[in-house]
Amino acid sequence: MQIIITGGAGFLGQRLAKALLNSSLAFDELVLVDVLMPTSPGADSRVLCQQSDLSAEGAAQNLVTSRTGLLFHLAAVVSSHAEHDFDLGWNVNLDITRLLLEACRHQRPGIRFVFASSLAVYGGNLPALVTDSTAVTPRSSYGTQKAMCELMVNDYSRKGFVDGRVLRLPTICVRPGRPNQAASSFVSSIIREPINGELASCPVPPELALWLSSPAAIIENIIKGATLSGEDFGGWRTVNLPGIGVTVQQMLDSLERITSPETRARVQFRPDPAIDAIVSSWPGAIDNTRALQLGFRVDSHFDQFITQFISNNQA
Amino acid sequence: MQIIITGGAGFLGQRLAKALLNSSLAFDELVLVDVLMPTSPGADSRVLCQQSDLSAEGAAQNLVTSRTGLLFHLAAVVSSHAEHDFDLGWNVNLDITRLLLEACRHQRPGIRFVFASSLAVYGGNLPALVTDSTAVTPRSSYGTQKAMCELMVNDYSRKGFVDGRVLRLPTICVRPGRPNQAASSFVSSIIREPINGELASCPVPPELALWLSSPAAIIENIIKGATLSGEDFGGWRTVNLPGIGVTVQQMLDSLERITSPETRARVQFRPDPAIDAIVSSWPGAIDNTRALQLGFRVDSHFDQFITQFISNNQA
Repeated sequence: MQIIITGGAGFLGQRLAKALLNSSLAFDELVLVDVLMPTSPGADSRVLCQQSDLSAEGAAQNLVTSRTGLLFHLAAVVSSHAEHDFDLGWNVNLDITRLLLEACRHQRPGIRFVFASSLAVYGGNLPALVTDSTAVTPRSSYGTQKAMCELMVNDYSRKGFVDGRVLRLPTICVRPGRPNQAASSFVSSIIREPINGELASCPVPPELALWLSSPAAIIENIIKGATLSGEDFGGWRTVNLPGIGVTVQQMLDSLERITSPETRARVQFRPDPAIDAIVSSWPGAIDNTRALQLGFRVDSHFDQFITQFISNNQA
Repeated sequence: MQIIITGGAGFLGQRLAKALLNSSLAFDELVLVDVLMPTSPGADSRVLCQQSDLSAEGAAQNLVTSRTGLLFHLAAVVSSHAEHDFDLGWNVNLDITRLLLEACRHQRPGIRFVFASSLAVYGGNLPALVTDSTAVTPRSSYGTQKAMCELMVNDYSRKGFVDGRVLRLPTICVRPGRPNQAASSFVSSIIREPINGELASCPVPPELALWLSSPAAIIENIIKGATLSGEDFGGWRTVNLPGIGVTVQQMLDSLERITSPETRARVQFRPDPAIDAIVSSWPGAIDNTRALQLGFRVDSHFDQFITQFISNNQA
């Protein structure tokens, strides 16, 4: 069986690839595809790295073959980027997802199709606790595109064209590397940069509640989403992956506790209304009940997000 | 100002055109466009009928011009049709809506864009009373496509590319004419055919609750949706138009009361699992509060649906 990961050059794609290679899951090929050539996450002969613009004529259709058994669709234009480049966001976030679903339908109907969605589908006037039955009213083009794809994956699943699984990811913290064009980029920056001895700015007020998951929990949950049976999801393939609710202030308190007041002092508040408008429209708390019943796992405390980052950083 | 109605050859398009021509709304051109050449709903020099496949290259872009001030997008492939012809449904229901939104964005940004959605966006495990904040989990491709368009119209509105209004229509009863490929076609057939002296079959059980609006209320509400100010909608442009909840049994009781036992006896129950699966996934009751606050109107009793049909039929 062949496994495909789109967005294979990205942080999540690389982490997921490593985890799959180290897992007991049986497969003979792991294709990492991205618009930039991915690097292989290890010396494993099963890995095939491929540079491809999946919006190009025929690219998605050629990617999926009769050998494909599982596709993780992680590729996306992130939130602030999709807000600034409207056309690119629709092209990558909506059109490529549809091209991939069509490729599955025609090349290999019924394969498992794991779609990485986001809590950014929520927005606007939300209840204090968001649940799976809360309407999605996104306040960003990124959230809109993700919400539309969620519906599309569900319909292709209902028709039997794919065996879809839609996983709504919490904001991930701590992402390694450099800041990106996600509106949530600061969520990692305000922990990562101070630990690396650099200054960071926080564009939102300290009382803002964020809904977070650590990279380790996300990767574990993405694989869980792929290995559950379709029936486990019931009639609807979308699930909010579990997270924990933490305010920016609590994050900084953790940072000071685990590192030092000097490290904490490297973060300064510099309000950015554009970032704030997007991020504060996202839920600060989502009911984890269904996800936990399905066997997804949840982090326990934000302190561990920091220790996880420090230990990965040193590895 | 020019007004455009897509789906202008259809029942709603024709009724809406007549109502606009008889209204106090100021406009100098009313374009009825459809894939089949629409007939003019009256001898009014403001009417321009146009045959056009809006999915064709450039068609949507040429339709909207700097003179356009208001666009009613009613054109759609109906529910059972979209279920049987998957590709056509996506092409007409999703792609044409997007092409029209793009045309507005580039040819005449900020015009009023009234999108006819449907209660078919709901489905699956619904609460007894559906509200504006109930998640949409459609169980048909038609409902999926409508739900995706709702999100898209909202995002284009948020960006200021159109001044969108998304109206979720209840099931309309009584539609004149012949049965169509809507899963809900029977809802009108079981009233219309017996009155016209013909037999009709009912594919769902008598206890099924339907959520209905009369044509007169729908047309009045569509015009209301166009004339409200954008601010009236608050941050979200989607509204469930008001309806009344009626069971099939109650509809047939009304029919017998207003016509005769002989007329009622022309309806026979012939279960159709495919139709039942779609229609029974729709809500039987939706909270009308927000719509009524916005000034939309609601029918009072199903008896009047029948008398409205009989009087229109005789006119």
